[in-house]
Amino acid sequence: MTQDSYSAHKATLEMALAAIRARTFWSAYSDRPIPSVYGEDALAHAAPRFKARLNQPFPIDQPNEAGEWVGAERSPYGFPLGILYPKSEPEELIAGARKAMSAWPSAHPEERAETLIEAITRINRESADLAHALMHTTGQSLTMAFRAGGPNAQDRALEAVAYAYDAMMAVPQQPVLWERPQGGNPPVRLRKHFHVVPRGIALIIGCSTFPTWNAYPGIFASLATGNAVIVKPHPNAILPLAISVAVLRETLRDAGFDPNLITLAADTPDAPVTKRLALDPHVRLIDFAGSPEFGGWLEDNARQAQVYTEKAGINAVVVDDFDDIEGMAENLAFSFSLYSGQMGTTPQNIFIPEAGIAAGGRGLSFEEVASRIAAAVEALLVEPAEAVEILGAIRTEVTLRRIEEARQCGEVVLQSHTIQHPQYPGAEIRTPLIVKLKGGDDPAYLREFFGPVVFLIPTRDTADSLARMEASITDHGGLAVGLYSQDRDVIEQCEAAALRAGVNLSVNLVGNIYLNQSTAFSDYHGSGANAASNAVLIDHAFVADRFRVVQSRFLAPPRAAE
Amino acid sequence: MTQDSYSAHKATLEMALAAIRARTFWSAYSDRPIPSVYGEDALAHAAPRFKARLNQPFPIDQPNEAGEWVGAERSPYGFPLGILYPKSEPEELIAGARKAMSAWPSAHPEERAETLIEAITRINRESADLAHALMHTTGQSLTMAFRAGGPNAQDRALEAVAYAYDAMMAVPQQPVLWERPQGGNPPVRLRKHFHVVPRGIALIIGCSTFPTWNAYPGIFASLATGNAVIVKPHPNAILPLAISVAVLRETLRDAGFDPNLITLAADTPDAPVTKRLALDPHVRLIDFAGSPEFGGWLEDNARQAQVYTEKAGINAVVVDDFDDIEGMAENLAFSFSLYSGQMGTTPQNIFIPEAGIAAGGRGLSFEEVASRIAAAVEALLVEPAEAVEILGAIRTEVTLRRIEEARQCGEVVLQSHTIQHPQYPGAEIRTPLIVKLKGGDDPAYLREFFGPVVFLIPTRDTADSLARMEASITDHGGLAVGLYSQDRDVIEQCEAAALRAGVNLSVNLVGNIYLNQSTAFSDYHGSGANAASNAVLIDHAFVADRFRVVQSRFLAPPRAAE
Repeated sequence: MTQDSYSAHKATLEMALAAIRARTFWSAYSDRPIPSVYGEDALAHAAPRFKARLNQPFPIDQPNEAGEWVGAERSPYGFPLGILYPKSEPEELIAGARKAMSAWPSAHPEERAETLIEAITRINRESADLAHALMHTTGQSLTMAFRAGGPNAQDRALEAVAYAYDAMMAVPQQPVLWERPQGGNPPVRLRKHFHVVPRGIALIIGCSTFPTWNAYPGIFASLATGNAVIVKPHPNAILPLAISVAVLRETLRDAGFDPNLITLAADTPDAPVTKRLALDPHVRLIDFAGSPEFGGWLEDNARQAQVYTEKAGINAVVVDDFDDIEGMAENLAFSFSLYSGQMGTTPQNIFIPEAGIAAGGRGLSFEEVASRIAAAVEALLVEPAEAVEILGAIRTEVTLRRIEEARQCGEVVLQSHTIQHPQYPGAEIRTPLIVKLKGGDDPAYLREFFGPVVFLIPTRDTADSLARMEASITDHGGLAVGLYSQDRDVIEQCEAAALRAGVNLSVNLVGNIYLNQSTAFSDYHGSGANAASNAVLIDHAFVADRFRVVQSRFLAPPRAAE
Repeated sequence: MTQDSYSAHKATLEMALAAIRARTFWSAYSDRPIPSVYGEDALAHAAPRFKARLNQPFPIDQPNEAGEWVGAERSPYGFPLGILYPKSEPEELIAGARKAMSAWPSAHPEERAETLIEAITRINRESADLAHALMHTTGQSLTMAFRAGGPNAQDRALEAVAYAYDAMMAVPQQPVLWERPQGGNPPVRLRKHFHVVPRGIALIIGCSTFPTWNAYPGIFASLATGNAVIVKPHPNAILPLAISVAVLRETLRDAGFDPNLITLAADTPDAPVTKRLALDPHVRLIDFAGSPEFGGWLEDNARQAQVYTEKAGINAVVVDDFDDIEGMAENLAFSFSLYSGQMGTTPQNIFIPEAGIAAGGRGLSFEEVASRIAAAVEALLVEPAEAVEILGAIRTEVTLRRIEEARQCGEVVLQSHTIQHPQYPGAEIRTPLIVKLKGGDDPAYLREFFGPVVFLIPTRDTADSLARMEASITDHGGLAVGLYSQDRDVIEQCEAAALRAGVNLSVNLVGNIYLNQSTAFSDYHGSGANAASNAVLIDHAFVADRFRVVQSRFLAPPRAAE
């Protein structure tokens, strides 16, 4: 790093530290592909570079004694990527990581933080390339992939560095002199050193839908606190993390550190390596986002490690009397449609009083509310070329089957239909399915239908809606709850219920801000207070356990003898 | 609280907050029974009050529907206490705690902190009474019981409040306005509230040797973060925690809160209730200090809770060339003798080169080093009346049996002998046993002989000593390691080994400061980085997970409309 970039990173760190305390709006990386930051037509220019990566080994020099390569990614837009990655054995990655943890843990927290900010800066320059990689692994549209997996994920990485730095700096970095008075005698004097030490090796298990956004917090928090990191990407979303790991390795090497502080453990669904890595005694930290089943397995079995999980939950919206019914319907329509509901924060269960609501001075029946919401979804997705930009592609067969299954759960209010992608005929594109369930006792809504599935649930009244929302989140977890109401009492009751259920609440969102979005430096993602997650992106609890302090005390000579 | 005490507590909190960052010497509560603080002859005046408690029900008004009472404490000084405590059922304590968590979690962190500092202030006034209660439950001498279990424990309680407050205040306590720019359009505006919410009910499982010192951090950290607390004392060390719980209940009631925020779950060895409490789904935090077996059981089984454990380890001292051999021997003698080695931090394994060391310009053989240490122990304990003040009484039969067993492990360098207590003929008092083992491969030293047992272990050289120290701590855990050396390289190597083993190191301690002491606001107790403990008294990791943040976001009107 030059002196200039060093100063710039120091300033960025200071702003990030202020931002995590203030939690007002702040962002370090623009999330629009504006020319002044990303160059002219950055996304278009990156397309041929993405094509050039296909059907090639991905260049990354890491331990791989056998020299074998692996990879079976397939774009949800309908073609195999054909990219191969080193098939490194878990044992060689662990040996490499252990060896690499020599100089890194004893570097000053500020040096580590600034080195990592340099890496984020370099990753930021790859944002357009990452967008293509993310699009063709997750199924997101290119613009969403750019925003969520590029700059927004980079903000979360910086946030992790800031939290980790803040937590470490709560420990004195210089030796302190401790003098205990002893009545008339000279004080007892000790010189004390407080050493921040890493836990060991951190394993980050990537997810298939937001590989960078979900993995960066763990990667950067663990590296910042002195640990080495092994990144085990989802077998269908390797490329975005391979690019990120390669940049980090290069940055670490340029800064004089061992690049094996971060390595990639690519695998295929047929020959997974995750469990071998997760149970290795040297792995002391695990970050996971994905299925409740595997998250639960990790929590139960990887007992040698601190395990941070984001699993799944069932998100809900409570609809009460609300004047701007159009604004609500449009807002919900976008939330349902964005990335075809393949987000942990997409709302699934919409609780509406069976007798309807009051809106704009008149009554709206349940059916009218339902049809306004359905109409808003139809209007949003009427133009296929625009619709695919919102919906992206369905990532797996399982999601397609879930749509079929959900159709049988009740009365179809809005049918899910297929859209042909203008450029990618192989892509599976589906609009959201909206199903009206029988009522609050219908068991269907207590299951997560990950994907473009929405249930409208008639309830006795708003109090019943609130009770069912709270019970479903308490029992099954949830990351996000919405409320539309003009009644101050209802808002208070809903907030109290959300606090009891430990779920984040968004009230009366209309316009260009959505329930399923959470923004670095301000919103917490998850609460760790219900079954959906045991960790939060990002708070002090997310970083404080990633390092330990070991102290050395030395008898110091009496003051006169100094 | 009056306005005056409110201001005083605010000032105390601010000093404590500064102290946890500086980690130089600071203490809020004098640990000598000086008249200006504790009254004339405080310890003597408390004796009749202690006697008056015996063979009586302990006055504490908490849920106890059946009206049964329980208690089987016996003083290690040779008599039963005969004190009875409410035999409250776990279910009624949990119901009481849940109900009590209404106003407390929504009080401002500062209000909770100041209420708890008021409680510590009131506990401080009970220090002389606590000293007698501690003496006759733990077997400590009265002066040690006063210091360690009174003011030193109160400092640790205040430290817990300060850390908890610091962690909560990292989250904005007032709603914040988030404004995201939108190009030429008016910004999107959200008002965001970040609610600190408790985890649930905290269970504190007390230990038999330092019931207050070990329990206060968990009690005060959990209360400060809004949780309700159930204190399950060791069946032979109930009284000190009963006194503490009663003061906390009274303070909470005076401050307008439900006293069932803290209750006592007394039991007997014949009818333990710990597992029932530990597995209750409402118990979300558990603090435990005690045996590795039960600590391991909690970690494996109480999966619904965050479990903070201090288990056990094997502490070591490495002896290298050192001039002040007298100072070293005296210092070690005191460490071995204090409370008959019934401390988690007492050194057990002393590694000494078989060829001896250099001291004061001449060589000292292994045998000479051994006999200097033995002579220092004998000299320290030559006067029975003074010796019992250091040794206290042996708490259990098991410890007496361990001394017998250790005798068979090698060559006895200093025999453990019995001292008759001048006032308490029923007390079991033993001086430390010092045994020379065969060598570094002797398996005996890889077991913890909790109590007055010291092994001298001949090694090939200091490098071998360091390697064996590191291996034993890495494999079996340890809280404290000592080194005596004048060689800068050896000191560096030892520090590096201690960092790898994750154990706190004290170098060249002579005079009135000992390996087995750790001081609030400066020393970390444990590191959480080896098998001896998964938690640290006290760091941010100890408090950051005791609460969660749940956010509510509200769409805010455009700026012009305000």
